[in-house]
Amino acid sequence: MEDLKQYLKERAKEVDAALDAYLPAARTRPGTIHKAMRYSLFAGGKRLRPILTLAAAEACQGDIEEAMPSACAVELMHTYSLVHDDLPCMDDDDLRRGRPTCHKVFGDNIAVLAGDALLTEAFIVLAQSSPTRRYPMAAFVAELAITGGSTKLIGGQVLDLEGEGKDLTKAQLIRIHEAKTAALLTSSIRLGAMSANATPARLEALTIFGYNLGLAFQVIDDILDVTQTTEKLGKTAGKDEAVAKATYPAVLGLEKARKEAHRYTDKAMAALKPFGRKALHLRQIAEYLLERDY
Amino acid sequence: MEDLKQYLKERAKEVDAALDAYLPAARTRPGTIHKAMRYSLFAGGKRLRPILTLAAAEACQGDIEEAMPSACAVELMHTYSLVHDDLPCMDDDDLRRGRPTCHKVFGDNIAVLAGDALLTEAFIVLAQSSPTRRYPMAAFVAELAITGGSTKLIGGQVLDLEGEGKDLTKAQLIRIHEAKTAALLTSSIRLGAMSANATPARLEALTIFGYNLGLAFQVIDDILDVTQTTEKLGKTAGKDEAVAKATYPAVLGLEKARKEAHRYTDKAMAALKPFGRKALHLRQIAEYLLERDY
Repeated sequence: MEDLKQYLKERAKEVDAALDAYLPAARTRPGTIHKAMRYSLFAGGKRLRPILTLAAAEACQGDIEEAMPSACAVELMHTYSLVHDDLPCMDDDDLRRGRPTCHKVFGDNIAVLAGDALLTEAFIVLAQSSPTRRYPMAAFVAELAITGGSTKLIGGQVLDLEGEGKDLTKAQLIRIHEAKTAALLTSSIRLGAMSANATPARLEALTIFGYNLGLAFQVIDDILDVTQTTEKLGKTAGKDEAVAKATYPAVLGLEKARKEAHRYTDKAMAALKPFGRKALHLRQIAEYLLERDY
Repeated sequence: MEDLKQYLKERAKEVDAALDAYLPAARTRPGTIHKAMRYSLFAGGKRLRPILTLAAAEACQGDIEEAMPSACAVELMHTYSLVHDDLPCMDDDDLRRGRPTCHKVFGDNIAVLAGDALLTEAFIVLAQSSPTRRYPMAAFVAELAITGGSTKLIGGQVLDLEGEGKDLTKAQLIRIHEAKTAALLTSSIRLGAMSANATPARLEALTIFGYNLGLAFQVIDDILDVTQTTEKLGKTAGKDEAVAKATYPAVLGLEKARKEAHRYTDKAMAALKPFGRKALHLRQIAEYLLERDY
């Protein structure tokens, strides 16, 4: 795992450098919006999604540089969704990645606009991708936009808000997790594969990997919310229970939730078989995510 | 002008039908978000921007159907910006297009998400454009995303918020109008021209037309805010003065503001010369916008 930590660190550094180069400088006018965008984007995120994009490109023997616009675009989309989810009228969170949330520092109005701008920037950056023989530019844009849209990422947040204080079934919970978490993780991986001109069969295998990894990731996130401190998480712990959010631990109990995380991770791993050694980093990342709760 | 009214009515109907077909049905789950998106999108807007897209395609001898994804995308982008601008933490408006604003009906949280979803939908729809020989898909996406981004549309809203209660110079005012209004009007027209594979010279001429039309449009909007009733406008009248917003009438006085609107319209008209009769509708729309204040 030491090797993986080194890999994650290096890749995160590359992603940060690329994001910094894509984004307008903090001094670009109007300064407020660019400072707010950069405040939330460079808050010390682990860059999991863009690293998955790059690792998926690697698994398909593609070029890391070719995958970088996609990698940065998914991180921009992810960050915008955090900024808006944290707003007082949504999850009302004061802490994110260990720092005060965007609206705490810049005010609600600028936080709404900074989220809007990060979302829009995702498409400015994505438009700088190089289409491949199998995947034209339209496929890249549709991939990210459909995943970010009203039936997936945004729809998941709606279901999440509407589910607070209600007893949800496991099936309903899975639907929220699919939309809110698994969809963007899956697209992060698919975009990497597409930038490497992956065969349809390989794209499909990585889609199954991403879907199961995404569900495992959300189950583990729910577990950590119960078992970890605010300090360790960098965001408010125990939040889910406070707003009576339906979560895996709440619906199934901690032990069964842990088993589910393992089951999803196993399924994810199985999908990587055809890639052999090329998928080493994807495999290591899946293991690493699973071990977060120990 | 009777002919123009008929033209505007027919084109608006075509745009509405296309938007209806592109958007997820109101019953698509989660229902709340799709109802909120449709509530704001089908609130009786005049569809000025998408009609300009179609008229620009016409002026370049292009096909209306080819321009429709771009036309719908700019209307989606425009509507999202209205939904977010009306939020309590922004301009705090209760009335839009003669009806209660989105957050008044669906709550602040769903209004934020509906705006996000309309913005994202713009790119889902835009990705369905047919690129042309001169303009690849990346050019379409970059056009809309850069215009919607932190240095134009969103940046303009930031400058507008920051300008409230301040004495602005005419130059500062123009910068806000360029970013907030002229940029999206210009892109609406450019996307129509691009979908018609316009020559660089024609695209440039239409850019000058759009820029000047956009500035004229905002000056007239500012004048109407002073001279018209809330009922007539379908949005709160006298709002600019209430929040001490810098506007053309406030900075220059009504008479000089009217002259500026004429001056910008003249410049816009001059840019249409090379198009001859093909630009009939663009010309008529520019005249019609100018005459709104009589």
